[in-house]
Amino acid sequence: MTTAFSFELAAADGRARTGLIRTPRGQIRTPAFMPVGTAATVKAMMPESVAATGADILLGNTYHLMLRPGAERVARLGGLHRFMNWDKPILTDSGGFQVMSLAELRKLTEEGVTFRSHVDGSKHFLSPETSMEIQRLLGSDIVMCFDECPALPADDARVAESMRLSMRWAARSREAFGDRPGHALFGIQQGGVTEELRGESAEALKVIGFEGYAIGGLAVGEGQAAMFGVLDYAPGMLPEDKPRYLMGVGKPDDIVGAVKRGVDMMDCVLPSRSGRTGQAWTRRGQVNIKNARHADDPRPLDEHCTCPACRNYSRAYLHHVFRAGEMISGMLLTWHNLHYYQEIMQGMREAIAQRGFAAWEDAFHAQRAEGDIPPL
Amino acid sequence: MTTAFSFELAAADGRARTGLIRTPRGQIRTPAFMPVGTAATVKAMMPESVAATGADILLGNTYHLMLRPGAERVARLGGLHRFMNWDKPILTDSGGFQVMSLAELRKLTEEGVTFRSHVDGSKHFLSPETSMEIQRLLGSDIVMCFDECPALPADDARVAESMRLSMRWAARSREAFGDRPGHALFGIQQGGVTEELRGESAEALKVIGFEGYAIGGLAVGEGQAAMFGVLDYAPGMLPEDKPRYLMGVGKPDDIVGAVKRGVDMMDCVLPSRSGRTGQAWTRRGQVNIKNARHADDPRPLDEHCTCPACRNYSRAYLHHVFRAGEMISGMLLTWHNLHYYQEIMQGMREAIAQRGFAAWEDAFHAQRAEGDIPPL
Repeated sequence: MTTAFSFELAAADGRARTGLIRTPRGQIRTPAFMPVGTAATVKAMMPESVAATGADILLGNTYHLMLRPGAERVARLGGLHRFMNWDKPILTDSGGFQVMSLAELRKLTEEGVTFRSHVDGSKHFLSPETSMEIQRLLGSDIVMCFDECPALPADDARVAESMRLSMRWAARSREAFGDRPGHALFGIQQGGVTEELRGESAEALKVIGFEGYAIGGLAVGEGQAAMFGVLDYAPGMLPEDKPRYLMGVGKPDDIVGAVKRGVDMMDCVLPSRSGRTGQAWTRRGQVNIKNARHADDPRPLDEHCTCPACRNYSRAYLHHVFRAGEMISGMLLTWHNLHYYQEIMQGMREAIAQRGFAAWEDAFHAQRAEGDIPPL
Repeated sequence: MTTAFSFELAAADGRARTGLIRTPRGQIRTPAFMPVGTAATVKAMMPESVAATGADILLGNTYHLMLRPGAERVARLGGLHRFMNWDKPILTDSGGFQVMSLAELRKLTEEGVTFRSHVDGSKHFLSPETSMEIQRLLGSDIVMCFDECPALPADDARVAESMRLSMRWAARSREAFGDRPGHALFGIQQGGVTEELRGESAEALKVIGFEGYAIGGLAVGEGQAAMFGVLDYAPGMLPEDKPRYLMGVGKPDDIVGAVKRGVDMMDCVLPSRSGRTGQAWTRRGQVNIKNARHADDPRPLDEHCTCPACRNYSRAYLHHVFRAGEMISGMLLTWHNLHYYQEIMQGMREAIAQRGFAAWEDAFHAQRAEGDIPPL
């Protein structure tokens, strides 16, 4: 067991990379997809099932956890890993994004953000210093800098102003984080879809110095073309020898496009949220299990998939339990979706290692283009 | 693998019995508790988890399954076992009880019951013959006679009239069931809380002859004392060499009292329904996990329990995920409750085999009398 946090690149193919993050809690194979465990649970999943899908690391949400059950309480109970029965690495976001999207009556100053809880209306304050303290109390392995996310659409001046505030907050986050061997602090690049601002942000972060670098402010409604446009240059602005984390992404083709452009880590609620609304992701695209065409279909969701939902159940069953509002619907579809996401990651890791990423990507898109199997 | 349905008594202690039901799908250790899988799923549980709790058999609801997804559909898909991924025995009820409690616009005649679905208002007809056909299509291992359950309160005349109709229906059920090696048909004793009517019902059933005998019409609001009053004589009216099944029971102390009085099988939604509403059953009684006293409690629900909820999580976690409305709350508490119920059954089976039921029962009640562990 290592006591340090480290990142080692094993291979690259074009701009796509594969490697290994080592932490005292275990290794993270990159490119890595991190399932989201917002409130100390990946919704509808037992943690051992999440691990069985191949996930090396989870994401926890600082905003949700600070409000309920509370960071001090989690610390008293032995930290987030023990609390939620997950002994592998955990990355926590800083709370900045959720404060902007969920909280009420926000007041933003240079110092930080005052807001009211969406749970019970109680008043809270988040700043680089309090966010670092909360993430320390949670016991997070990878801590994110506290940043500000401007609401979109925003003009360049607003994006620049916000990015520069986030860079000042990144310096304060680094200072407040202190010296924590085995734990990592990641900086977050901002700058919207403007190359010059992205460059300015990357330079500011590199001057401070982090164990990893995230690309923030994307996947907020700008569309895939605009996102890929930024990813054509943004990862290259960040240090090559550190992990690059694209926050909040995404659909399977977003993920493949991001890895192709040099991203090492991603997270998204999509596979679990989709699973609870009857949406399955397969190698042949999206399947809406609610659709009446599945009611009599004895075939699995994906005959090549080895997840429990595909091994043990028909589309007809998955359709039935969704229609009947049964919890096993969300349990099985979430498991399938997370399994499929991890299968994509594993496929990309192997393809990059063998310098065959382009062929893998062609096959990925060709299978999706076929669409779902025809009805019987 | 046996091809016949059989029951063998292994030991008795007082009126309590332990034995083994053999079916082509596997053995059922008695006394047995059957978790309820109403709509082709034990709510909040994967079937392999239900099996891991020690359940040898599940109950499926004919009424729910005939309405959605439909018995013909289940048959086309290979039967209920394959549909819901449960290869051990399944007992199905006849639909009679649910028609009375759930359906709308019922019309009862000698022939059967016409009613409207509570799901979509569609019109359906259930009779001894259609119930046998539906249970055959589902592939049930233990089929229940179609009976009529009078709404309570009812006077003796109404109870007698209803019981006699059910006995005529029992004869038609037997006739319609036909010759199905490896499958069993159970008759259902009715007669309310009146010993004379219970006796008349038992005699009628024995004349027809069944592979097992259920005690119906209890656990419908009469209270534990009245139920035990009936159980003081009703099991003894039924053949000693056949399984006796008390339908819809119950709380842990109901179950222990029923086994003490000679019951071999039971089913109830209570452990799974309680699990979804934050209620846990432990050897020290009932725990309401919603209660604020658990918010900071690092101790397991029951330190002696080996279920995943108790092995891997604190009361504080269970409290948190219930308050946050997370699905894992229902998943973990249902698992715990079903595990505890099976532990009671296993404890009683061993105690009866060792002729130590009275001591086991004393310990059971003594532990419950202690109440939950004191708050920290």
